Formats: sequence, structure tokens, C-alpha cells
Amino acid sequence: MHDLIIIGGGPAGMTAAVYAARKMLDTLLITKDLGGQMMWTREIENYLGYQYITGPELIGKFEDHLKRYPANIVYAEVTGLQQRGDGTFSVYCGDREHKAKAVIIASGKRPRRLGVPGEEEYTGRGVGYCATCDGPLYAGKAVAVVGGGNSALQAAIELSVVASQVYLVVRGSFKADPVVIDKLRAAAKVEILRGYVARGVYGGETVEKFVVADNGGREKDLAVQGVFVEIGLDPNSEFAVGVAKLNRYKEIAVNCRTATGVPGLFAAGDVASGPDKQIIIAAGDGAKAALVAYEYLLRNY
Amino acid sequence: MHDLIIIGGGPAGMTAAVYAARKMLDTLLITKDLGGQMMWTREIENYLGYQYITGPELIGKFEDHLKRYPANIVYAEVTGLQQRGDGTFSVYCGDREHKAKAVIIASGKRPRRLGVPGEEEYTGRGVGYCATCDGPLYAGKAVAVVGGGNSALQAAIELSVVASQVYLVVRGSFKADPVVIDKLRAAAKVEILRGYVARGVYGGETVEKFVVADNGGREKDLAVQGVFVEIGLDPNSEFAVGVAKLNRYKEIAVNCRTATGVPGLFAAGDVASGPDKQIIIAAGDGAKAALVAYEYLLRNY
Repeated sequence: MHDLIIIGGGPAGMTAAVYAARKMLDTLLITKDLGGQMMWTREIENYLGYQYITGPELIGKFEDHLKRYPANIVYAEVTGLQQRGDGTFSVYCGDREHKAKAVIIASGKRPRRLGVPGEEEYTGRGVGYCATCDGPLYAGKAVAVVGGGNSALQAAIELSVVASQVYLVVRGSFKADPVVIDKLRAAAKVEILRGYVARGVYGGETVEKFVVADNGGREKDLAVQGVFVEIGLDPNSEFAVGVAKLNRYKEIAVNCRTATGVPGLFAAGDVASGPDKQIIIAAGDGAKAALVAYEYLLRNY
Repeated sequence: MHDLIIIGGGPAGMTAAVYAARKMLDTLLITKDLGGQMMWTREIENYLGYQYITGPELIGKFEDHLKRYPANIVYAEVTGLQQRGDGTFSVYCGDREHKAKAVIIASGKRPRRLGVPGEEEYTGRGVGYCATCDGPLYAGKAVAVVGGGNSALQAAIELSVVASQVYLVVRGSFKADPVVIDKLRAAAKVEILRGYVARGVYGGETVEKFVVADNGGREKDLAVQGVFVEIGLDPNSEFAVGVAKLNRYKEIAVNCRTATGVPGLFAAGDVASGPDKQIIIAAGDGAKAALVAYEYLLRNY
């Protein structure tokens, strides 16, 4: 029985782990990997203290920081969460059960999929979810970006610098900041396909063709070597259904101090409710969650 | 008329300024100095990304980051704040008036005083509020520390390395992290005076004697050359009285997203309500305040 289990190793989870370690809590961090969404970020310019750092570099700094303390890390995916009769928690990774008196959910978000034929088959072979990470691989090639939000438009802008041609496939209207839309309009080589949806990804070893369709169902073939899917993120909250309350975005509903309303259960970072998704905000909320969990443990055990 | 005035240049204010600059807001930062309470901190071990950094070093990193952007900085003390009939704000530094459409208050806290005879007279001549800053001046001398929280205990531990004798004067029980209490107990040369309160500071040119009294009123003279007051902090919120709502700690009452309830007025960091006072939390909330102020400006101007 641990004092605390932290689920997720992104900025919220790692900061929570450092704070918990400094409070000398017996802490278990369960995560698929260290870094979370920072892994997909090439340029970070708004983590205070680092004017310019890549995602992997900042992960390295966080990891070094974390590993100064004797926290246990289990690299696994959490598949279930239960509160037991005595108020403690069981966290399941498949068959494996881990127990703790308190839990912080900091499991972040994952990219939303298109759900079309070929998407899964070509993931990593032309279909990507992080233009920032993989963009440079497409120098001189034609690519498509799907989505109409900030991240899709930024991906198109970024890719237009290296790619020979960028198709931006948008179902409806743009949902991006004006400054980003302005930059998109100024970008050369971007063709906007408005009112189109994805139909399928095809090719040989790698992607050769992306089929899209307009409102009337008329298909159009795009000869591209890359398809970047930037249609938003889904919270990794499935394992908490039935224990924590989710909001309409399937984020875990929390109050200002990361409490879920279930005694001993806290959530921080992108998986938690709240519209402001930033590394430094996730880190701050991770610290908050650890401090609040520490108070909870002091008062109840 | 600026888009945004940020009052205070600690971690919350500086992070807000970077985020505002990245949103291309015309921003004015008004602060007495850059760094805020980080200036008084020798060792920072819980700002994620830096395993170990001094306060002044981290200030330097934040300052470099801030100065990459074209933010205007005015070095002055804010003495008044008014909302005008049209919803914009006037920020006063004495006679000088600055105007903006939105304001973020991030003015932090200042050390609380003992309120005993001699305290004011000997401030800077033996009475101090920052052991980390002034500790080295007391090499080989006897000093007293007043307080029972993390900062008091850390001050005592730190001073015990250089001073010949450290008296730790604590009214009640310790309110510090277990790891800090452990370190205190391991520190040589610290004598804990539990159940004592300060009565007065006496001396000639500099401090020679610190008088304390126990619960029964029995006085005790401590022959010390330094007295460090570490009994907590008061929010720098006086200038906002009558505009923003304060809580019982005189912190500016905010919701989860740093809004004060007054349209266009936000608060973040230690001056804002919320029990969790940490550099990384202040930085995260400063980012949040800038994002929310940006939304406010988009919607209203």
C-alpha cells in the first residue's frame, strides 16, 4: 500500500512526483513513458526559465530532476481504477494491481484519430499526429493536414516552409486565433480545401494518396506522401469512468485545488477540467495536486 | 492606453508578461524589481527543470526570457488602482498615471513584522527578514530566528552553518515539512526555544540583545547580533482595496481562472487567494491570467 499513486508522467505527473518526494510520501508513478505530450513538441518558448528548448530536452531536465528523488516508477498503461470500501484505491495495469491511499490522475491527452481506412496501417509510415516532430522528414514532398484549429493551422504553416505543397483539409470554418489565420493566409504553398472530410489513406510501403470528399460526397485524390491529423485531443480518462466525474469533454472534473470530489482522488494537467492547457500550467497544477494530496494524507492517515 | 498592465515582477508577473508578449498584447509591466520573493531564496529545488538553482539565478533566467520580448517595464511602486467609467483602468505610481484595458495584479507578498520595540530601529542593523540574503554577514556570531514554518526552520538550518549559535524562537508547534524538521534536528548549534515570543530588540549601533518571553511572561535575554524574522508574509494588495474583493488574508479573491469578478481585472501568484504558494504554481497561474486577459480583450475590444 503506497501513500500515493500518480498516473501519468507528463509535466503535471512529474512535478507532482517531485513535490510528493520532497514531502517524503511513498509514491508510485505509473506511466507509459516520461514526457507525455512534451514529446511531440519541437519548440518550447514559453516554459519560464528556458527561452528556447525542445520538448525532448525539457523532458530530460524534468527527468533528471525527478530521478534525484527515490520515487518508484512503473512503466505501464493504467487500465482501471477502483475505490475500495476503506477509501483506498486500486490502480490496475491489466492484471497487475497497485494500491494507494491517494491517487493523482495526470494522464494527459492523446491525439484524436480520423477513423478512416488506412489510417492505422500507415501510422508512422506517412500518417502522423505531430507535424512539429515529423515535419522535416517531408522536405520537398507534398503533404496534407487535417483540421481547422490552432494546431492544424500551425502545422500547415510550419510544413509549408519545408514541403513542396501543403493541402489543408478543413471540414467547417477555422477555429484558430486571428494571428494564426493571418499567418496561414501569408504562407505560400498552402491550398485550403474547405468543406472536405477524410475518406482514406492509400499507398504501398508508405503513403501515396489521401482521399477526401466534399459535402456532396464527391471524392478527390490528393497525391501526398504525408498526412498530418490535427483534429484535437482526447483525455486519457477512460480508466476513471465510474469513479471520478467527467465533464462534457471527458476531462476529469476538478475544483481550483485539483480535488475531484472523491476523497483522496485528485487530477491535474490536460486530463483535468479547465481550458488552459500549457506545460507551465500543468506543472503548477501538478505541484498543487501533490500538496493537496499530502494534506489529505496528513488529515486522514 | 495599453492593452494590459501587469503589476509585479515575480514569477507570476514575469510569466504573465511573456505570455502576453507572445499574444502580441501591448503590455506594461510595473514592478519595484524583477524577481519578487525569489530574491530572498538561496536554494530552489522544486522549480521543475532546475534540480538546484539559487533565487537570483532563476530570476536571471526569467529575466533573460522576458527580455526576449518587447515588453515595457516601469520600475516603480504601485500606490493606487481605479476602474474608470468606460471599464478601463488607471494604475497610479504616486502622481504618475498609467492606463490599460486590462490589469493583472501579481504584486506578491512582503514579510510580516514582529511589531516589538527596536524592530524598526534595528532593521538593516541586525534585524533582517531574509536569512538567505544576510546570513553570511553573521559568520561566527550568535543569531536568533523567529518562526515555526518552513522558512524559519530553513533559515535556522542555513544560519547554523555559519553562525556560532542559533536560537530558534517558536511560539507554538512547527508548521514545516517533515524533511525540513529532520534536517533541523540534525543541525548542530541550533537551540529551540519553544513556547517563546519576541518582546524587544536592544543594542547600541547594532543589535546586542533579543528579549523573548515564555507563556508565563518570564523574560529571557538572548545575547545575539542578529534577529531574523520569519513569521509569514502579507499580501501587497492595499492599492486594490475598493476595486477588487479581498479575502480574510487580504489576498485578492479570484476564481480558478484568476478572474477577480471585476471585468478586465485578474490576479495571480501569492497576492491572489489560494493556499498553495510556490514558484511553479505562481508561474502557471501567471500564464493562466495572461491567457484569460487575452480572451477578455479579444471579446471586448
